[in-house]
Amino acid sequence: MSEFLQLALSLAIIIVAAKAGGWLAGRLHMPAVLGELLVGVVLGPTVVDLLHASFLVDPKLLEHEIYDLAEIGVILLMFIAGLEVDLREMRHAGRVAVLAGLFGVAVPLIMGGLAVLPFGYRGGEAIFIGITLTATSVSISAQTLLELGVLRTREGIALLGAAVVDDVVVILLLSIFLALTQAAGGMGSVAVVIVRMALYIMLAGVVGWFVLPRLARWVDQQPISQGLTALAVVSALLFAWAAEVIGGLAPITGAFIAGVCLARSPLRHKLEDKVGTLAYGFFVPIFFVSIGLHTNVREMGSAGLLLLVVLFIVAIVSKILGSGLGARLGGYTNRESLRVGVGMVSRGEVGLIVATTGVVQGVIPEEVFSVVVILVLLTTLVTPLMLRAVFAPAADAKSGAAA
Amino acid sequence: MSEFLQLALSLAIIIVAAKAGGWLAGRLHMPAVLGELLVGVVLGPTVVDLLHASFLVDPKLLEHEIYDLAEIGVILLMFIAGLEVDLREMRHAGRVAVLAGLFGVAVPLIMGGLAVLPFGYRGGEAIFIGITLTATSVSISAQTLLELGVLRTREGIALLGAAVVDDVVVILLLSIFLALTQAAGGMGSVAVVIVRMALYIMLAGVVGWFVLPRLARWVDQQPISQGLTALAVVSALLFAWAAEVIGGLAPITGAFIAGVCLARSPLRHKLEDKVGTLAYGFFVPIFFVSIGLHTNVREMGSAGLLLLVVLFIVAIVSKILGSGLGARLGGYTNRESLRVGVGMVSRGEVGLIVATTGVVQGVIPEEVFSVVVILVLLTTLVTPLMLRAVFAPAADAKSGAAA
Repeated sequence: MSEFLQLALSLAIIIVAAKAGGWLAGRLHMPAVLGELLVGVVLGPTVVDLLHASFLVDPKLLEHEIYDLAEIGVILLMFIAGLEVDLREMRHAGRVAVLAGLFGVAVPLIMGGLAVLPFGYRGGEAIFIGITLTATSVSISAQTLLELGVLRTREGIALLGAAVVDDVVVILLLSIFLALTQAAGGMGSVAVVIVRMALYIMLAGVVGWFVLPRLARWVDQQPISQGLTALAVVSALLFAWAAEVIGGLAPITGAFIAGVCLARSPLRHKLEDKVGTLAYGFFVPIFFVSIGLHTNVREMGSAGLLLLVVLFIVAIVSKILGSGLGARLGGYTNRESLRVGVGMVSRGEVGLIVATTGVVQGVIPEEVFSVVVILVLLTTLVTPLMLRAVFAPAADAKSGAAA
Repeated sequence: MSEFLQLALSLAIIIVAAKAGGWLAGRLHMPAVLGELLVGVVLGPTVVDLLHASFLVDPKLLEHEIYDLAEIGVILLMFIAGLEVDLREMRHAGRVAVLAGLFGVAVPLIMGGLAVLPFGYRGGEAIFIGITLTATSVSISAQTLLELGVLRTREGIALLGAAVVDDVVVILLLSIFLALTQAAGGMGSVAVVIVRMALYIMLAGVVGWFVLPRLARWVDQQPISQGLTALAVVSALLFAWAAEVIGGLAPITGAFIAGVCLARSPLRHKLEDKVGTLAYGFFVPIFFVSIGLHTNVREMGSAGLLLLVVLFIVAIVSKILGSGLGARLGGYTNRESLRVGVGMVSRGEVGLIVATTGVVQGVIPEEVFSVVVILVLLTTLVTPLMLRAVFAPAADAKSGAAA
């Protein structure tokens, strides 16, 4: 079998497995992402160890290629996340969303950073683990609320807004963290870091805000086959590249900014559709499975297990406390605030993206990555259950009124 | 710059260049594929030599990755070509299409094979160069006829049908050729080759014809994000993989069969749309440019130039003679037959795919590949011009009648 055929077969196995896992999870009323991740863990060294299967000609090359395709998946996911940032809608959700988002970042950051100190993680590592806990993936909560018929309540709308604020702040935190840790050489290099960041953000702002939407409209009118799709992919890749090379930031920051800039375009929905086809039909399943390929649950010792338990508790408590406090300060009742807080618990793909970035940049060790992967799995698992519990009375009342 | 970022930047450059080249060609009333290929030649060793640019960390790995992505592009292109094979529509075009298709393959195969004998190419090489000349890409002719307003004439419809027949026969020829050359060890291995081919075709037939369309309908109804897209990609990859590993055939044959089988599905247009987004928005531009990255025009000596001139003349004359003869035998007038023959001249992407397969399988040397690439460029360049010339009176009459 040629080297290309080993790639073709591996990709086919990975995509089928991911989609089957997602489908099965859905049948069991679980979030699809849970199934896709679990399938990845099964295909990884924990059980099957696909990357060391007997049919492989060149496992090293294959591993490289799969991880690079997964990275493109991450870039596209962050681009889509950016596309979903509607600044007008954010103003709509208003003060509550901003407060719930901000406190939903601050409390997990502090609690997470402190919680790992007894485990011997210090400085940068501790802060980065804290940052990993600040992420939120609201798609699972939104799906659950939709099923319960309570997505268009006050809590639901605040939740959607808060998740966007959370995304923006996490990306900002991550960027600043990475930029500063790379400037370990004192004040002079801190100045360089700040200048580079400013330069990139200025450049990306001007190009993204003024040029990109116009370019998108123009390209869409030209007789170029899939011109708009190509433009979206290229701008995500180029903004990602420039974020690191010019700005010293993480590539995902660039992809996110490209998405936010194109969210202004009237072609936004077409872009979501096109890039979504590329992302969810090919690259994102590869990303989800590749996470499992990185993870070895069997190598997690008792220390890792203890860390997992502690972080799991901190992850849940800190989000409910933080986002709940934010919502309360924004004028929501205790019950409403609790619901908003619970809806923010799931870390989902954003948590994984942050953790992956940490491993790639060498900020957190592999064993912490495995813990974070399982942590994300667990928070994703419990969020729908907890949401159903705290929304139960409202959902009952609603279906009673409808009957 | 990390290894992933070199890939991101290279892909961005390649996709932008391809799309810009295609757009520019369109502005000059040339086929888009011409521009995309020329841009590839410019980015290749002939001018820029992108794969040895100074920003690269690991050129070897990058080259591998780009060629593998290009191969996925080829697989998707052949899958789409298969999707366009409508067996009912083929019956519609009828006898003329079949005759024009068959003779349009036979004459170039024989003339091409004979023409390279004086250049010292023998046996398998000569036959394979002949096979390369049998390809036809009708999209450029269809586009030209559409512009002239004569696509829905007798000639236009025969042309579309003949091109599909051509595709099927070329794939068949290529498959048999590759299978037989790999069975160089006498009658025993010829039997093995035939058994393997039969086994694969039986398997692919049963799975593709009965299972795939049902599976597609089922997947499309499930709550799987981009499930249909993923199914299409996976079946193209798996059929391609099995074609070589089980059947001893070229991977593209498998992708083509998967497409033909799914062409029966009522979801055909949705599949074309989804896979088209993936293909033309990402993978196919990479394929077109990668061809230029393989090609070095500067290294083509006077022998190569002579070969090019001879093959160019043979390519044009043999197609017009062959397809024209077929159309004439099918009952068309001389003028109509000439028009059908001229419309089949362009080799386009199918010729390139055949040539790429030849290089990958080691059947033709690199220098022949460069000649074929330029040959494809030239036939693609002259076909619209020749079509306009032979259709001029009809188009004039038509616009006269319309006025």
